[in-house]
Amino acid sequence: MLKTARLEAFSDGVFAIAITLLVIEIKVPEDTAHLAEQLRHLWPSYLGYVISFLVIGLIWANHHAMFDHIASADRMLLFLNTLLLLLVALIPFTAGVLASALRNHEGERTAVVLYGAVLVAGGLPFNAIWEYARRGHRLLGDTISPAEARAISRRFLLGPVLYGAGTALGAVLPVLGIIAFALLIPFYWLPPQMSRLTAKSA
Amino acid sequence: MLKTARLEAFSDGVFAIAITLLVIEIKVPEDTAHLAEQLRHLWPSYLGYVISFLVIGLIWANHHAMFDHIASADRMLLFLNTLLLLLVALIPFTAGVLASALRNHEGERTAVVLYGAVLVAGGLPFNAIWEYARRGHRLLGDTISPAEARAISRRFLLGPVLYGAGTALGAVLPVLGIIAFALLIPFYWLPPQMSRLTAKSA
Amino acid sequence: MLKTARLEAFSDGVFAIAITLLVIEIKVPEDTAHLAEQLRHLWPSYLGYVISFLVIGLIWANHHAMFDHIASADRMLLFLNTLLLLLVALIPFTAGVLASALRNHEGERTAVVLYGAVLVAGGLPFNAIWEYARRGHRLLGDTISPAEARAISRRFLLGPVLYGAGTALGAVLPVLGIIAFALLIPFYWLPPQMSRLTAKSA
Amino acid sequence: MLKTARLEAFSDGVFAIAITLLVIEIKVPEDTAHLAEQLRHLWPSYLGYVISFLVIGLIWANHHAMFDHIASADRMLLFLNTLLLLLVALIPFTAGVLASALRNHEGERTAVVLYGAVLVAGGLPFNAIWEYARRGHRLLGDTISPAEARAISRRFLLGPVLYGAGTALGAVLPVLGIIAFALLIPFYWLPPQMSRLTAKSA
Repeated sequence: MLKTARLEAFSDGVFAIAITLLVIEIKVPEDTAHLAEQLRHLWPSYLGYVISFLVIGLIWANHHAMFDHIASADRMLLFLNTLLLLLVALIPFTAGVLASALRNHEGERTAVVLYGAVLVAGGLPFNAIWEYARRGHRLLGDTISPAEARAISRRFLLGPVLYGAGTALGAVLPVLGIIAFALLIPFYWLPPQMSRLTAKSA
Repeated sequence: MLKTARLEAFSDGVFAIAITLLVIEIKVPEDTAHLAEQLRHLWPSYLGYVISFLVIGLIWANHHAMFDHIASADRMLLFLNTLLLLLVALIPFTAGVLASALRNHEGERTAVVLYGAVLVAGGLPFNAIWEYARRGHRLLGDTISPAEARAISRRFLLGPVLYGAGTALGAVLPVLGIIAFALLIPFYWLPPQMSRLTAKSA
Repeated sequence: MLKTARLEAFSDGVFAIAITLLVIEIKVPEDTAHLAEQLRHLWPSYLGYVISFLVIGLIWANHHAMFDHIASADRMLLFLNTLLLLLVALIPFTAGVLASALRNHEGERTAVVLYGAVLVAGGLPFNAIWEYARRGHRLLGDTISPAEARAISRRFLLGPVLYGAGTALGAVLPVLGIIAFALLIPFYWLPPQMSRLTAKSA
Repeated sequence: MLKTARLEAFSDGVFAIAITLLVIEIKVPEDTAHLAEQLRHLWPSYLGYVISFLVIGLIWANHHAMFDHIASADRMLLFLNTLLLLLVALIPFTAGVLASALRNHEGERTAVVLYGAVLVAGGLPFNAIWEYARRGHRLLGDTISPAEARAISRRFLLGPVLYGAGTALGAVLPVLGIIAFALLIPFYWLPPQMSRLTAKSA
């Protein structure tokens, strides 16, 4: 059994770099004539930046909340966590593709589906980490009861479903997908209410 | 209630990456004939680098000072902190735009206003973090009294006002804005004297 | 004698950055006509990304396991660790060369050999760290016995041998080398069985 | 008085990013015909990478050793440390210029002098940190005596002198400067002997 301190430090590093690399996709205009207008034309990059920054920040915040209850790690947990980071670190790429498609007014559907698919895919190792850790209370500490861990599961499992729905909307009409991804951010930043809601409706 | 250790580690990561990415905007000359002259022509990049490095370093130092007194975190604090980081991580972009405009001798006004606007905007979540944490001493530890927390508030709130004034100067004459941003750095690195000053003048 | 906390923090930082920089080698298509097809053509970049991400994640996990037993550091250990990081930080470059060769259908042999050679070379300081630390139990803590440290040595020493074999296969037929590198990942993620195996066969 | 934990974490982050960004200056060949030959032509980039990686690693190791004795921080120390990081984070740029000049066989003298000048300049805040901290034992802990702190001063002060001599050599004959920078690395990785030497000769 390993302590989770270095896993958290390494994950924090990857989250911090992925989130900060997003800015690289906002290209500095080479030509600065009519600069104000050129900067306005970069709006798809700003939109992609803001949504992606908040999405990665949200995944980080939930990773944080999850590891507050995970007391120890084993090789399998390190592996699942690496898969999660692999998908998070792809977001600067998919955000770049999305901004590029919006700027060119072509390929938006493909770009939105790619963007959403990586978020849905990231939900799989995220949930796998939690299910693996809580199975038989294997890696959890005593700060949480099995019933509470189950309630958190329901909330986490909802994530890929909601992002999947957003992706499906985006496959029909790209702008709907983007709106869905944006709306999921405030919805997920405020967990206690939601957690209560899903616990009741279960 | 969450501990602030991972919030600080994640923030330190984002600050460290944003500050180090500044160097990427200083492009290595492809052609090395007359290299010394070419390196001299990069002075706007050096200027943007030095000012931006010290500005981000300063925000980091104040973030550090602020979280020395914040004892615990909740979801709202994580969210406000993410908004702050979102704006800090934009600085390599705005510094690049500024250097580009100075090099081309056009668009300086727009570039200075953009640069200042992001600094002013960053002051909003910065102040929101502190006001949220100190309201009713909600998230503060016992290392600080409510009166001291109020005195710090006054100093922090001055920040966006001063940067806003610098931005307004820059909108009139770009070089004045740059001088203002540069002068605010030493002014803000030495807080105790200033804190006393503003406390007296209040 | 130095504590290992900062060595681990610095190493975690380098691992986290090297692993996240891998995404930079997946270039966002400038032209978004036929975007889906263009994204499909990037498959060598995705392949290089996934293998390299898991390889760096694996080296990190083993570095983690190793330093769980190393209790203190000296200048020589810092030096050997810096050599290891020097080679790990090269992987985004060699992964980029590999993806470039696969995309162009030329130079695959050279690219696979370069990729493997850096992995083999990285195994040398990795093993040197462990051998240096365990010689006379010099820098080890009391969480491990000399016999256990010896068993771990055998497993670690196998690493460059297996990656060397993969590189040799790749020199004959590039695709075989890539398959070998991919297969070594799951093999090395599950250490206890293997450790038992090599201990028995020794 | 602030604790040094976050200063160290932030500095580790900047060191880790600056050292890992060095790889970005080794450009992946776009055209992969005659790949082996093309990779050989990149030797100046490899040379710049190895020297710069070990130099930054060395500054990190000495920063580590220095802060093992510094028990607390104030605003001035944070400022001096930020100046040091500002110069360390420039090294990927100066390494890129050096590699570019060596590849083009022109501008080597300028590039070597620039490279050395940044190392010399970095020595100034490095020494300022130590002198500021040890003046009157202001910020030092009790792990070190004033006499030991003085002995370390002599060794640290030698740094910019030696790098300055290397830069002067490079201004005469570029290759001599590069050799000097390379030779200073092993010389400085092994401090105890040297420290004794300079203590005796003082």
